[in-house]
Amino acid sequence: MSAPDERPATVTLAAYLGTRLRQLGVEHLFGVPGDFNLDLLDGLAVDGPAWVGSPNELGAGYAADAYARSRGLGVVVTTYGVGELSVLNALAGAAAEDVPLVQVVGAPRRAAVETGALIHHTLADGDFGHFSRAAAEVAVAAETVIAERATEQVDAVLLAAVTHRKPGYLAVPQDLALAPVDAAPLARPLVAHSDADALAAFEARLTELLATAQRPVLVVGHLVPRFGASDDLAKLAERHGVAVVTQLSARGVLDPGHPAFAGDHAGAMLANGTAELVEAADVVVHVGTALTAELTGFGSHRRPDADTPFLAAAEAGFGATPVGRVLLRDALAALDRALDARTGPRFERSAAVPASVVELAGPLTQAQLWSVLAGVLPTGTALLADTGTAYYGALGIPLPADTVFSGQPIWSSIGYALPAVLGQGLAEPGRRPVLVIGDGAAQMTVQELSTIAAAGLAPVVLLLDNRGYTIERALQSPRAVYNDVAAWDWRALVAGFTEGRAGYADADTGEELVDALAEAFADTGRMRVVRAVLDADDTPPLIDELARLANAAKQQRAGNTTDTV
Amino acid sequence: MSAPDERPATVTLAAYLGTRLRQLGVEHLFGVPGDFNLDLLDGLAVDGPAWVGSPNELGAGYAADAYARSRGLGVVVTTYGVGELSVLNALAGAAAEDVPLVQVVGAPRRAAVETGALIHHTLADGDFGHFSRAAAEVAVAAETVIAERATEQVDAVLLAAVTHRKPGYLAVPQDLALAPVDAAPLARPLVAHSDADALAAFEARLTELLATAQRPVLVVGHLVPRFGASDDLAKLAERHGVAVVTQLSARGVLDPGHPAFAGDHAGAMLANGTAELVEAADVVVHVGTALTAELTGFGSHRRPDADTPFLAAAEAGFGATPVGRVLLRDALAALDRALDARTGPRFERSAAVPASVVELAGPLTQAQLWSVLAGVLPTGTALLADTGTAYYGALGIPLPADTVFSGQPIWSSIGYALPAVLGQGLAEPGRRPVLVIGDGAAQMTVQELSTIAAAGLAPVVLLLDNRGYTIERALQSPRAVYNDVAAWDWRALVAGFTEGRAGYADADTGEELVDALAEAFADTGRMRVVRAVLDADDTPPLIDELARLANAAKQQRAGNTTDTV
Repeated sequence: MSAPDERPATVTLAAYLGTRLRQLGVEHLFGVPGDFNLDLLDGLAVDGPAWVGSPNELGAGYAADAYARSRGLGVVVTTYGVGELSVLNALAGAAAEDVPLVQVVGAPRRAAVETGALIHHTLADGDFGHFSRAAAEVAVAAETVIAERATEQVDAVLLAAVTHRKPGYLAVPQDLALAPVDAAPLARPLVAHSDADALAAFEARLTELLATAQRPVLVVGHLVPRFGASDDLAKLAERHGVAVVTQLSARGVLDPGHPAFAGDHAGAMLANGTAELVEAADVVVHVGTALTAELTGFGSHRRPDADTPFLAAAEAGFGATPVGRVLLRDALAALDRALDARTGPRFERSAAVPASVVELAGPLTQAQLWSVLAGVLPTGTALLADTGTAYYGALGIPLPADTVFSGQPIWSSIGYALPAVLGQGLAEPGRRPVLVIGDGAAQMTVQELSTIAAAGLAPVVLLLDNRGYTIERALQSPRAVYNDVAAWDWRALVAGFTEGRAGYADADTGEELVDALAEAFADTGRMRVVRAVLDADDTPPLIDELARLANAAKQQRAGNTTDTV
Repeated sequence: MSAPDERPATVTLAAYLGTRLRQLGVEHLFGVPGDFNLDLLDGLAVDGPAWVGSPNELGAGYAADAYARSRGLGVVVTTYGVGELSVLNALAGAAAEDVPLVQVVGAPRRAAVETGALIHHTLADGDFGHFSRAAAEVAVAAETVIAERATEQVDAVLLAAVTHRKPGYLAVPQDLALAPVDAAPLARPLVAHSDADALAAFEARLTELLATAQRPVLVVGHLVPRFGASDDLAKLAERHGVAVVTQLSARGVLDPGHPAFAGDHAGAMLANGTAELVEAADVVVHVGTALTAELTGFGSHRRPDADTPFLAAAEAGFGATPVGRVLLRDALAALDRALDARTGPRFERSAAVPASVVELAGPLTQAQLWSVLAGVLPTGTALLADTGTAYYGALGIPLPADTVFSGQPIWSSIGYALPAVLGQGLAEPGRRPVLVIGDGAAQMTVQELSTIAAAGLAPVVLLLDNRGYTIERALQSPRAVYNDVAAWDWRALVAGFTEGRAGYADADTGEELVDALAEAFADTGRMRVVRAVLDADDTPPLIDELARLANAAKQQRAGNTTDTV
């Protein structure tokens, strides 16, 4: 049917999907095979993204999440039922954290579904819809492919995921994976558009609001890095001299030396002057923020009012009212133009506070650990911080220029950041991953160390070993046995998972940590694991503050039953 | 309020739950703590079942599943969202395999839910129902506790789980966990009852059917061991001289030397005479069976007709028509009485076929491995076989007397059986667990080795290392890279997870395997791991048969689009 040098008139559905994914920047697929997805994998292997198999599905899902944060789309492929359900935690995390993670599931053949056949990987009740309905609880678009609408469904799920920065779900029946589909749509890339009238209305009102603003502040959230718009935001802020504060979910969006950067902002949780700056602003613009309890210092931030402009993934507006469909990048451009007309003064940042010096004598402490890490962290790294003391510790250190900072401040599923090293490392080969993670979190997903080593990645892994869940010890019941985890011989495990390819060191004192990290950062060619031995009750300062605020909220609840957090 | 020596009038909700669980035989709780379940865990720690923490939730769920199979109820405790979703695979597996596994979730406080607060572990969309709705897709009963009905809801979920041998789901808001509830219901144990009329009707028609039966056969499925009724079934069969065949999901229900045991039955998949025996029967009784494609030899078994009696978990009947609510144990008693009146001859089993001798020379083969294992497996073990070549290999060997055989023939989620060792071992301390598992499956859940060692259990672990998913290689695309897994240094890993407490040996030849297993079975005081190195394409005989049947089905589909499997 097709002449030479032309795209064939039909391709397999798997090839169609593979081409669409490559058009959207996806060069790696994460996942685990299973008998219902083998045809799909065979079809994707023909010119599709490269296969990266993981020991289990949750690890693959987390890796694909990190890949999506960097590339703008990530894909995890699983089999039906047994495979897909193990990814649901990752898919929900992508919903909470606004990540375009698409799960592709190899599903049973249509005849089995239509007749309610009793087969493996089902509940043996003839109902094949249980798992796609569960996925639909968290996915922005969920489709089980039918022959008549296959390419339309593929396109709809992918476009929804990249437009809204939300997870998608696509189930492909085994007998459709290699079925021929019309290749014609592939000639048109998948692109979303803003509504022109809504965009104009947003820009007009924004221009008016900002025209005479003397002390405007941009509060920047995680949607800015999700859309790869950090550089645009930095340029805009510098050009217009408008102050920027970053939510803890958007750390690193501006380099610390950026002239318009006023610091991280989490209401009263951070005593760095940003709360006062935002309080004193005459116009506050929310650029891709999320106003969860933790990110707002338990509601101690300044709340938006009816005039507060906001830019979200696929809408923009004022207060709680969107003007219509406005994509974040278009809204940012509108903000740029609106600021052109502003007549107020440029923001002048105050001098940076020099970091305090921490003594290194005695057994290793959290205070020492974060001070030492801050001193050796090179520019150009991807700092991945797992939930718990590792995350709150990493929040407290100054970041070098050109740092990608990543974690799960909203979903907070421990174990996420270790497989995330795999996705981040493959997505941006030029940026060395640095993982900080507690032992409790690392125990969740430890086997992914093997995939990281097998992929030839060379992260620095700083393992905080305090024999349990110290963030919970800080919040409640410090002596409860449920907060203890089994002791592992980490040196043996690292050797076992990497077949001896990774370097390893224990650090029991500050001096040992200095030496171990210096060696690790100097050895750029392979994975280096440094295990920091910490007291079970030792915490970084932000955890103490978190515990104080959480306990204050608890006290308040005791006398005020209308409190919500 | 309460006098000495009396039960207090109120207890905390957590204590109520703990007491109910102990009444139902639950002495261990599996799970992972999280900030929303800490009050619940603190409350359960007071006289409740003992806490067994796992590295991650899926492992805890699988362990609780195995515990439930043995004890009649198992419980996994998780936190909200991030924790519970990682158990959904295990919960669905319990639905497919008819296991009374109850998930208890520590949920956010009621005020947060009522006001749609934006907090961590949610999708930050104000909707707190996403995850309980996902669980309800697979649970027989799912409740989020409210103050007014708390004890009623606890009782309803537990009773439904044990009655139907299905998973339950119970979410306890953080601020209700330690709230006082009425203790009075605890005086009455939770018990389900059959409908007397339905039971009588079932027995009457069954008696009539069997009265003159000359060649009756009982086809026994997994519900018999699920209800702990294997001994009752064995006695019934011996007393009445009625032939029994066991589905592959019910291996070991009858000892191999039992006079009424005619063999395992899976239609044409097993050439052991049971297909012919069932075909020639004048009455076939289905006792707790499941008729999935794999368990029926892809539909090659004799199908039930309108008169075929069946006994299910909470109903019994004929053909596809239940007579009403009849519990399996009551139905078994009815079957016993019905057989009293039978006048036909007793079943005489034919002589057992002696096992063929396998040569041990050369590199280790699957044929050697299963022959060697069969030769050393002691009586009184719990043989846990993970999905894949390990499961089909284990199906092919004769079992010693008093063997508990366990796996997932319906759900077939790889990685299940390793954490299952934890649950089985704690549930039945007197029975040594023997795990057979492929390397691909073991990679899924490997960290649970640490919990098994920490609990002081002493299983024999036979690891089949063929560097990937050989069952998939046998079915399709044997050279596909997606069927390969990363190479691990298992000796180092076993040492790392168990802190050197486990014995370890590699076996590259049949002779080495003989020696390693002999040592392992002789060393009853600690975990012993034996890694059997196998060729990637080598398979046990039943896998070859499975591949043959699957390919025949594929051929048939090519010419017959109405086929369903």
